[in-house]
Amino acid sequence: MKSIIKQKFSVSYQYDIHFTSGLFTPENRLLSDFFIAQADGAVPKLLVVIDEGVVTHHPALVERIRDYFGSESAVQLIADVLLVPGGEAVKNQWEPVDRIIESVNRYGIDRHSYIMAIGGGAVLDAVGYAATVAHRGIRHLRVPTTVLSQNDSGMGVKNGINYRGKKNFIGTFSPPVAVFNDNLFLLTLNDRAWVSGISEAVKVALIKDAAFFDWIENHAASLRRRDSEAMDYLIFRCAELHLQHIAGADPFEFGSSRPLDFGHWSAHKLEQLSNFEVLHGEAVAIGIALDTVYSAIIDMLPPSDAQRVLTVLQELGLPIFHPLLESAGGGHPLLAGLEEFREHLGGRLTIMLLKAIGRGVEVHELDKENVLRAAAALQEGVNLVS
Amino acid sequence: MKSIIKQKFSVSYQYDIHFTSGLFTPENRLLSDFFIAQADGAVPKLLVVIDEGVVTHHPALVERIRDYFGSESAVQLIADVLLVPGGEAVKNQWEPVDRIIESVNRYGIDRHSYIMAIGGGAVLDAVGYAATVAHRGIRHLRVPTTVLSQNDSGMGVKNGINYRGKKNFIGTFSPPVAVFNDNLFLLTLNDRAWVSGISEAVKVALIKDAAFFDWIENHAASLRRRDSEAMDYLIFRCAELHLQHIAGADPFEFGSSRPLDFGHWSAHKLEQLSNFEVLHGEAVAIGIALDTVYSAIIDMLPPSDAQRVLTVLQELGLPIFHPLLESAGGGHPLLAGLEEFREHLGGRLTIMLLKAIGRGVEVHELDKENVLRAAAALQEGVNLVS
Ligand SMILES: NC(=O)c1ccc[n+]([C@@H]2O[C@H](COP(=O)([O-])OP(=O)(O)OC[C@H]3O[C@@H](n4cnc5c(N)ncnc54)[C@H](O)[C@@H]3O)[C@@H](O)[C@H]2O)c1
Ligand SMILES: NC(=O)c1ccc[n+]([C@@H]2O[C@H](COP(=O)([O-])OP(=O)(O)OC[C@H]3O[C@@H](n4cnc5c(N)ncnc54)[C@H](O)[C@@H]3O)[C@@H](O)[C@H]2O)c1
Ligand SMILES: [Zn+2]
Ligand SMILES: [Zn+2]
Repeated sequence: MKSIIKQKFSVSYQYDIHFTSGLFTPENRLLSDFFIAQADGAVPKLLVVIDEGVVTHHPALVERIRDYFGSESAVQLIADVLLVPGGEAVKNQWEPVDRIIESVNRYGIDRHSYIMAIGGGAVLDAVGYAATVAHRGIRHLRVPTTVLSQNDSGMGVKNGINYRGKKNFIGTFSPPVAVFNDNLFLLTLNDRAWVSGISEAVKVALIKDAAFFDWIENHAASLRRRDSEAMDYLIFRCAELHLQHIAGADPFEFGSSRPLDFGHWSAHKLEQLSNFEVLHGEAVAIGIALDTVYSAIIDMLPPSDAQRVLTVLQELGLPIFHPLLESAGGGHPLLAGLEEFREHLGGRLTIMLLKAIGRGVEVHELDKENVLRAAAALQEGVNLVS
Repeated sequence: MKSIIKQKFSVSYQYDIHFTSGLFTPENRLLSDFFIAQADGAVPKLLVVIDEGVVTHHPALVERIRDYFGSESAVQLIADVLLVPGGEAVKNQWEPVDRIIESVNRYGIDRHSYIMAIGGGAVLDAVGYAATVAHRGIRHLRVPTTVLSQNDSGMGVKNGINYRGKKNFIGTFSPPVAVFNDNLFLLTLNDRAWVSGISEAVKVALIKDAAFFDWIENHAASLRRRDSEAMDYLIFRCAELHLQHIAGADPFEFGSSRPLDFGHWSAHKLEQLSNFEVLHGEAVAIGIALDTVYSAIIDMLPPSDAQRVLTVLQELGLPIFHPLLESAGGGHPLLAGLEEFREHLGGRLTIMLLKAIGRGVEVHELDKENVLRAAAALQEGVNLVS
């Protein structure tokens, strides 16, 4: 006996990313309209989980949420709003995920109910994971509160938690049902957090959109001094480019190609070496600088273009090198990072480089000598066009 | 500021279900060919996880697997083959899932590696869950070893583990990369396990394929006395109908409709009441009997058709009633089960009934009186066509 059945199907996802100010002010009908539009007979429940770091800076938030939903009949807020630690802390332990699953059990949250996560990328990642695995998936809503999560991770399809110090070792691909970006949350970020999120926009502009890179160049000063209008545009355009990319290619990353990881292979290593002292966006800025200079060294990218990249990063207030990337006795940390990235991808090594501003190109090998040369150039602050 | 981006994309899945005899005999090139066809440059790793109940009955299995892959160059077997408890035990604890994730970490299993699960539906569910969440998804292969898992759960897209006694409270939707059904594994099942898996075939025939139901009627006696040829056909056709259904409708169950859950609402309750003493397939047989008689009582289904259903279940050696479904002082267990199913679905109650043999119809309410009347008829063994 030998026979076969070939199975084949597609699953479609649709979700809206809303951009607003003051999501939970009574006059703002966005959320209310969302739940009214979703109504299908029964009144769904809503479990809200918030980043403690957000609550510290917005102490009235929980009350405002209760007020907002108090008068809603299209959805039933679970009064017990959960608070979870912000930053990597939420991803480094089981407890917050466990507590969410426990609440799903206690409050009878079903697959037609909602779990809303309000917070930075780390909280969105952990809550998204809990929402995805409880009952094989409860509808999840994201309210990102940092620049990085509003322009990048909050739109995406990935979630995850850490395991034995390994970033995102456990997680799934699972799109949200809707995303609500509220620009007022960004006002309480400190300068470092504000600026570091911008590097994902520089990244996506460099590989996909030269005009957007020009715009960032022209607005580097206003972005750095926290001009809200400039940031609104940056977030909108960056989110749009990320979303187009996800929709266009391989959303659940079955292949090895990950263009949006431009600048990320060394960033992962640096974050880890610094014990996450270096912020993701800062590490990405350095990673972008490294791969840009590498692209120039191998004559793929004109040196003047590479110089523009370094200049804009510095004008934004982003770092382009870190001492932890210097050789330290044993092997060079960058070469170790490259090997780890190769293993992480499995299959074939694939790394994005630059051919021009706005035009990324994938390669399957990096030359070690030239990686070290690029790092040395950044360390010494060499002027590329000299 | 108020604006919106609408995101939309599809993710495609393809996998083959192979039917074979003696998957790990050296002459059988099916698995070998599979890995050769998948090759993409690097040699992937393969972590194998086996149901202890299977190993008990096939003590040479681990050695045969090592031999089989010993000469393979297209894949690298991790010598440390993991054994996990069979049946609900594997789903009732974190330990087996944890051990698999731990091995993923220890042996550097990446997203282009494979995890193969060999076992009954419970082991496939737990291993599938671990494989899906480790590194956000490692390619998983299923080798189902029971009738139920070969004709139903092994082809499907769901996995899961239990949590605080709640079945499948944690899990995901995540299709396998391939399924290998080996009919030799079925030889070591006891009679109860052999027969109980047949009820899923009766179920899918009743809602979708009258000709298949006729075939089951004609082969009830051979199936019961464990004729292999009859079982091969039953599994193939049942798998095919399940697969067509999944591909045709709502694979990840975003809506409330679950036609394949015909007969399952009361089955879930009975399994739970019996502490899983009653096998899933036995509970489903009783659930089919109940919803069939209910369909006749409300004049949806001709009584003679209902009688055919009861007769075939009995000829197969399947139960059609269980004393745990009798009223017990407080509320009736079936009415409680109906409420739990309503909650479980969230949104709108949707239950499949029969309009004819081979033709299911969904309804959104069951009449309590008639549910109890149907149960009483089964309990008393009333002849429906008298
Ligand atoms: N899922 C993805 O696709 C994806 C992509 C990129 C990054 N990430 C993840 O995102 C995380 C980083 O996210 P992040 O940069 O948003 O930072 P974060 O979530 O680590 O938060 C940093 C700090 O800011 C605080 N905070 C959040 N919002 C605030 C606000 N409005 N005002 C004041 N403080 C606030 C938090 O409490 C925390 O202490 C990492 O875990 C990374 O792995 C995920
Ligand atoms: N994921 C899905 O879509 C889906 C669908 C239906 C059922 N299920 C799940 O499947 C499970 C039931 O699966 P099942 O009926 O296959 O039984 P099982 O996995 O519970 O196994 C029953 C027993 O049979 C033993 N066994 C397995 N193969 C054997 C063999 N070849 N010879 C001898 N013994 C063997 C096991 O060790 C176990 O002790 C439940 O947990 C149920 O929730 C999942
Ligand atoms: Zn990033
Ligand atoms: Zn079933």
